[in-house]
Amino acid sequence: MRFTRRLVLAALSVTLPAVPAALAQSDPLPSWNDGSARRAILDFVARVTRDGQTGYLPPAERIAVFDNDGTLWAEQPVYFQVAFALDRVKALAPRHPAWRETQPFKGVIEGDREAVSAAGEKGMVQIVAAAHSGMTTAEFNGIVADWLKTARHPRFDRPYDSLVYQPMLELLGYLRTNGFKTFIVSGGGVEFLRVFAERAYGIPPEQVVGSSGVTRFETRPDGTPVLVKEDKVEFIDDGAGKPSGINRFIGRRPVLAFGNSDGERQMLEWTAAGDGPRFLGLVHHTDAEREYAYDRHSHVGRLDKALDEADRRGWAVVDMRRDWNAIFPRLPSGER
Amino acid sequence: MRFTRRLVLAALSVTLPAVPAALAQSDPLPSWNDGSARRAILDFVARVTRDGQTGYLPPAERIAVFDNDGTLWAEQPVYFQVAFALDRVKALAPRHPAWRETQPFKGVIEGDREAVSAAGEKGMVQIVAAAHSGMTTAEFNGIVADWLKTARHPRFDRPYDSLVYQPMLELLGYLRTNGFKTFIVSGGGVEFLRVFAERAYGIPPEQVVGSSGVTRFETRPDGTPVLVKEDKVEFIDDGAGKPSGINRFIGRRPVLAFGNSDGERQMLEWTAAGDGPRFLGLVHHTDAEREYAYDRHSHVGRLDKALDEADRRGWAVVDMRRDWNAIFPRLPSGER
Repeated sequence: MRFTRRLVLAALSVTLPAVPAALAQSDPLPSWNDGSARRAILDFVARVTRDGQTGYLPPAERIAVFDNDGTLWAEQPVYFQVAFALDRVKALAPRHPAWRETQPFKGVIEGDREAVSAAGEKGMVQIVAAAHSGMTTAEFNGIVADWLKTARHPRFDRPYDSLVYQPMLELLGYLRTNGFKTFIVSGGGVEFLRVFAERAYGIPPEQVVGSSGVTRFETRPDGTPVLVKEDKVEFIDDGAGKPSGINRFIGRRPVLAFGNSDGERQMLEWTAAGDGPRFLGLVHHTDAEREYAYDRHSHVGRLDKALDEADRRGWAVVDMRRDWNAIFPRLPSGER
Repeated sequence: MRFTRRLVLAALSVTLPAVPAALAQSDPLPSWNDGSARRAILDFVARVTRDGQTGYLPPAERIAVFDNDGTLWAEQPVYFQVAFALDRVKALAPRHPAWRETQPFKGVIEGDREAVSAAGEKGMVQIVAAAHSGMTTAEFNGIVADWLKTARHPRFDRPYDSLVYQPMLELLGYLRTNGFKTFIVSGGGVEFLRVFAERAYGIPPEQVVGSSGVTRFETRPDGTPVLVKEDKVEFIDDGAGKPSGINRFIGRRPVLAFGNSDGERQMLEWTAAGDGPRFLGLVHHTDAEREYAYDRHSHVGRLDKALDEADRRGWAVVDMRRDWNAIFPRLPSGER
């Protein structure tokens, strides 16, 4: 039924100069089934946008923050930025003969998952550093853009940046229509995110907060100034780092925060602690069939303490299987 | 004459629903005298906003960055944030009896400038750290706001945040009217700046880039989460740090950059190195009578290498005495 209605809307939008306002607004969240999560969102937005009423927020204060991995796009079987780093190490291997004999690089090149796992967090830091340093920021942007064009998710066989959640795209758009400024606050690398955030989510570079490495300004012999990405972590925007990141980049306490894991617990607490109306939400991955099902025992995107806290404090918990009637956007036929 | 015209405009705006557009637009920069700087600004804005013409920039790319100290507000006889730190140390002194015997604090408390100078950069770091750490971010905002309400500039006997440059306020407004997003990119502390940036310049917190200290997320015994400002520098947004700060916070290369000292040289070079039309500007402090005159030999806001580069590359240099017919906004009579 929804599908038919959307087809009608699409047909209308071709023949009319614009979709009639009343029709377009009739359901701003078509991929969200009726339920407590959807109702909590609609109630919150109605409450803060009613001028002159209790709870009204002027547009400047309508700051909404979203985690990325597992909240706006998928994060299984590994964070997509890790998939990028692994692919990048393979692509760089011919230039680094020594890697063939050194872990964790040897394991990556040979596709030996156990060896990579055995190298632990230290190994992962080495892999990420190799993929994210030694080039200029402009070169890095090009590398990520090329990867996004060619890499495919192992299960869905789609480009990674097409594995964004359709219901969250609708939520971002709905919030912006209602005067909110939408930000990403991610543990992922800020420069990695910015390559696709504007296209995928409509979120401009200056509204992306993330982890970062040190960049070094230098002037090339021909006089061109460049920023070179160094092999040195500058800031990790995760866990207790997220409120610090929000404070530093945004400088204003959000009124709405959405996450999906314990990495967002402090961000949600920080948001909740402000005066006035607040919306706190968690995406709970409960849909092994259409996406993935994981929470308290997952290595990627563990949701444990934050789930208890959401329960205790009445935060909205989105049950992906029950609350969403679509997961990913339909790919235009023939695209890529 | 200009004064009279403004009075007429003010009177009109009371009696009419809005100032007629043609009249309001007749001179967007009334405090700028006709000259090469003013003309360069008007030409640049006209060029990048003419849709379909060479040089047109879509609004998303109209990123304009401004240094603060000496560019948007005054910076003599000392950076205003240093004046704040000195006042703060005096206010805190009763709680720190040991300071009466220890430099540089002893010198600050006794008003002994030579002793403070003798403590050098190390001493200044101690003073700034004492004034900027050990409190929550919310407490710090309150301290700065209170200081701005009571402190007076030693020469002009006005609140520090009234010593903003009227011509630059007009420029900021003119750029925003033309679809630009205006950012501060300052060596000053990002949290200090945000206390007054929105009120003084119309620049919201999320468009302020500056130096920062580490903040620590902690939960108070009553369950309230806070961010505590630590005595640890996180990022210095000055010199070669400014392009890094722009890259990290904004993530897009600006098309217009304005500074007044060698601290902005790399920011201007970075901005200039992009494709397409660019505007680079420097405020040259040449007006000892109405403000200050200083450049190559000043300890505060030294302008030396950047002035040579501006000359060589044809960047706009604003001669404050010649180009500006007003320096500071008129204080509303009876205010504060």
